[in-house]
Amino acid sequence: MVEERRLQSFVKAIRPRYEDFLAQMVQVPSISMDPSRAGDMRRMAELAVNCLTELGAEATIVETEGYPLVSGGWTAGSRYPTVTIYNHLDVQPAQEPEWKREPFAFKKEDGIYHGRGATDDKGPALSALFGALFAVQQEMPINVRFLWELEEEIGSPHFAAGLKNRAAVPRPDSVVVSDTIWIAKGRPAVPYGLRGLLGARLTLRTGSKDAHSGLTGGAARNPLAELIEVVQGCVDAKTGRVKIPGFYDEVVEPTKEELRDFLRSGFRVSRFKTAYGFRSLRTDDPLEVMRRIWAMPTFELHAVNGGYSGAGIKTIVPSYGEVKVSMRLVPNQVPETIFALLKNHVAQLNPDVTVTQEGVLRPFRGVFEGPYVEAIRRAIKKGFGKEPALVREGGSIGAVVTMQQTWRVPILFMGLSLPEHGYHAPNEHFDWRQASGGIRAFAHYCSELATMGKVEQEKEERQRTASGKGQRG
Amino acid sequence: MVEERRLQSFVKAIRPRYEDFLAQMVQVPSISMDPSRAGDMRRMAELAVNCLTELGAEATIVETEGYPLVSGGWTAGSRYPTVTIYNHLDVQPAQEPEWKREPFAFKKEDGIYHGRGATDDKGPALSALFGALFAVQQEMPINVRFLWELEEEIGSPHFAAGLKNRAAVPRPDSVVVSDTIWIAKGRPAVPYGLRGLLGARLTLRTGSKDAHSGLTGGAARNPLAELIEVVQGCVDAKTGRVKIPGFYDEVVEPTKEELRDFLRSGFRVSRFKTAYGFRSLRTDDPLEVMRRIWAMPTFELHAVNGGYSGAGIKTIVPSYGEVKVSMRLVPNQVPETIFALLKNHVAQLNPDVTVTQEGVLRPFRGVFEGPYVEAIRRAIKKGFGKEPALVREGGSIGAVVTMQQTWRVPILFMGLSLPEHGYHAPNEHFDWRQASGGIRAFAHYCSELATMGKVEQEKEERQRTASGKGQRG
Repeated sequence: MVEERRLQSFVKAIRPRYEDFLAQMVQVPSISMDPSRAGDMRRMAELAVNCLTELGAEATIVETEGYPLVSGGWTAGSRYPTVTIYNHLDVQPAQEPEWKREPFAFKKEDGIYHGRGATDDKGPALSALFGALFAVQQEMPINVRFLWELEEEIGSPHFAAGLKNRAAVPRPDSVVVSDTIWIAKGRPAVPYGLRGLLGARLTLRTGSKDAHSGLTGGAARNPLAELIEVVQGCVDAKTGRVKIPGFYDEVVEPTKEELRDFLRSGFRVSRFKTAYGFRSLRTDDPLEVMRRIWAMPTFELHAVNGGYSGAGIKTIVPSYGEVKVSMRLVPNQVPETIFALLKNHVAQLNPDVTVTQEGVLRPFRGVFEGPYVEAIRRAIKKGFGKEPALVREGGSIGAVVTMQQTWRVPILFMGLSLPEHGYHAPNEHFDWRQASGGIRAFAHYCSELATMGKVEQEKEERQRTASGKGQRG
Repeated sequence: MVEERRLQSFVKAIRPRYEDFLAQMVQVPSISMDPSRAGDMRRMAELAVNCLTELGAEATIVETEGYPLVSGGWTAGSRYPTVTIYNHLDVQPAQEPEWKREPFAFKKEDGIYHGRGATDDKGPALSALFGALFAVQQEMPINVRFLWELEEEIGSPHFAAGLKNRAAVPRPDSVVVSDTIWIAKGRPAVPYGLRGLLGARLTLRTGSKDAHSGLTGGAARNPLAELIEVVQGCVDAKTGRVKIPGFYDEVVEPTKEELRDFLRSGFRVSRFKTAYGFRSLRTDDPLEVMRRIWAMPTFELHAVNGGYSGAGIKTIVPSYGEVKVSMRLVPNQVPETIFALLKNHVAQLNPDVTVTQEGVLRPFRGVFEGPYVEAIRRAIKKGFGKEPALVREGGSIGAVVTMQQTWRVPILFMGLSLPEHGYHAPNEHFDWRQASGGIRAFAHYCSELATMGKVEQEKEERQRTASGKGQRG
């Protein structure tokens, strides 16, 4: 149904507009984690609405008690299927000293788009938008909706509330999420499962002010030392093995079949190390690396705050310490259970330490076979010239679980980012190769869904729900 | 030899000048630890020279490869004894959020002098200066010299080199150091020993950039987690017991006699906790607290840098971590030996961790009996109305060991700070009660030394050196 020649010339023609939109979006420092950026978050929502309406789509800001959602799209008619494409427009902070350019000054260079948010997730959002625009211009019998979140990087605390606004955010027949990463350049990957996330802060105050370590050291308690002893009691640093009793009880280990799929994914340890800049890993066995990053839970230490972190060594005994940790969770771990286990374990290690929960994302298991997966396969093959591998993704997208629970429709993934793009890392970038492949793949996916039609999709969904088929842990 | 009435009216008369000098000094943020303060360090040296010359003393800036020394004083004649009074004019950083006032905006309030450096060590330096001024005005037969350092807070790296300038920094007959703290308000204390200090940085890099913990967590090494495992392998956080093999081998435990002196010092655990704002201690036994803070070595964790320390939890796997620690050392621990033990132990715990030495101060043992100690006793009794207790001090003053090694003359201590003054802590302050008592005590001490005379002092020194008497570990 897609005329390839027409699609090629469309993609070529809209490139300047794509780059203009991306530049505008990257230049807004929409850091949802930083409370001082509230004004930028509002600007981001307004800019998103402008991008949609400039292309002739309707668009609206859906207010929540946090940052809003942006909802919009093109309606062909109620007899046609509706697909909602999910992206997010908030970004990670960009404080790392390794940044070579101003993170929020968009820079285009030889088809590379530099800036925080370029690949996570503004660039992919715009690829989906322009892919859908092609479908609309070709008058395909499909309704395409966009759902752009502004709180993804802080665990989607108000996303579920936003979805309750059914008028502004209608229930679709299926969802496609474009916020995941390939295994490697030239190796498209479609995940069918996501890890969950549970953050926690451990704090300890032993005094009202920092004290001179010469005058008090030896008798004074050291809250930093006590906190790290607790962390060390939660995880074995070298192996990553979590020591919290009961932590692994509900973990569903990947099946032999899944592990066989992993081995077919094209994952290479050397590429993984290069993409993320690792000098060494906890293991060099490829299957074990995949198992650990996709299918096993973790306990990660992100920061230890307190004491004197400036230049030189200030010889104080700190009065307060804070530790930031998070756990990636896998099916069937339940975040509430894991938090209770953590809290109990910390209380046994050091009863003076306070444990606070910071954000919860449940692990997700999605469809891995059936017509939607086949449609994604074909769309990616046509967009990028290569079949995707079916994998899991080690990251967490809270909104996915919420959409699954709210709408109970199939949720598919069509991510466009590469490992070397620097997700959550310094010098983030995106590129035209992935952007244009993505536009083509989204145009083809719209065509696939239009061809499938609404009736067919409803039938498929009924069967799937009845049999439980197509679910995998 | 001191006419009390005359001294009282002198003290009263010079108070405005004392406060003016202190205000000027506190307003210079002479943070030797902060390389961006080089200009302020120079201003501090110049201001110090001005203070001395305004009072009629000669004064000179003694250049070193680091920050200079300020040397000056009044000369009565070479047949009279010379005392050098040591203070330092550099200060600790003042970044703590607990500061209630601008740290470098001097504020006088009901006889309290607020500001960083007020008690450590600018206030005591000026007390000594004005006490000596009285002696000079009374034409006492004594030469009084001042040696003001600007690198005390960074471990006196160029002090020894500065002392080699014999013309600018002549060898005295005795030294008095005014940079120590009483046991409690109303309980003067004279220490005869100091702990040493050995700082170290532990660093570990496992990647070139921080990575997304969803995409890499489980396989990626976590340098923060590995570093804290190393720290935990060096010290038991709850007891403070150092786990480095051989660490305690050369420690000379305090004798029964010393412990008996400690018990007579007026030390109270409750006062200690209040003064430093501690909620609880590792032990509540008073003698054990004193033993730990004065006579036993420590391993203190000051900071863990790396990862994301901003607002919220940024779920990255850090690529780099840095830990700042220091050890207080006691006689007869040798810093070089201890550093070698640390380095060896860390290499066994984690060979990828780099250990860097950061500053060394040797532990010190001084005189605890004889005419100088008696002179100090009488001067303090007259200045403050109460006999001092002979104690040890848990802090470290690198310059003390250097002066001992360079000049081989008696070094005495006459500190004026109180525990509640906030040494190395937020809301540092000094007060007129301690300042004026100090001026009186220094005036009396000059008188005592003048009465003792040069010949007597030389005889005493020869005896002391020959017999080894008056040394205590």
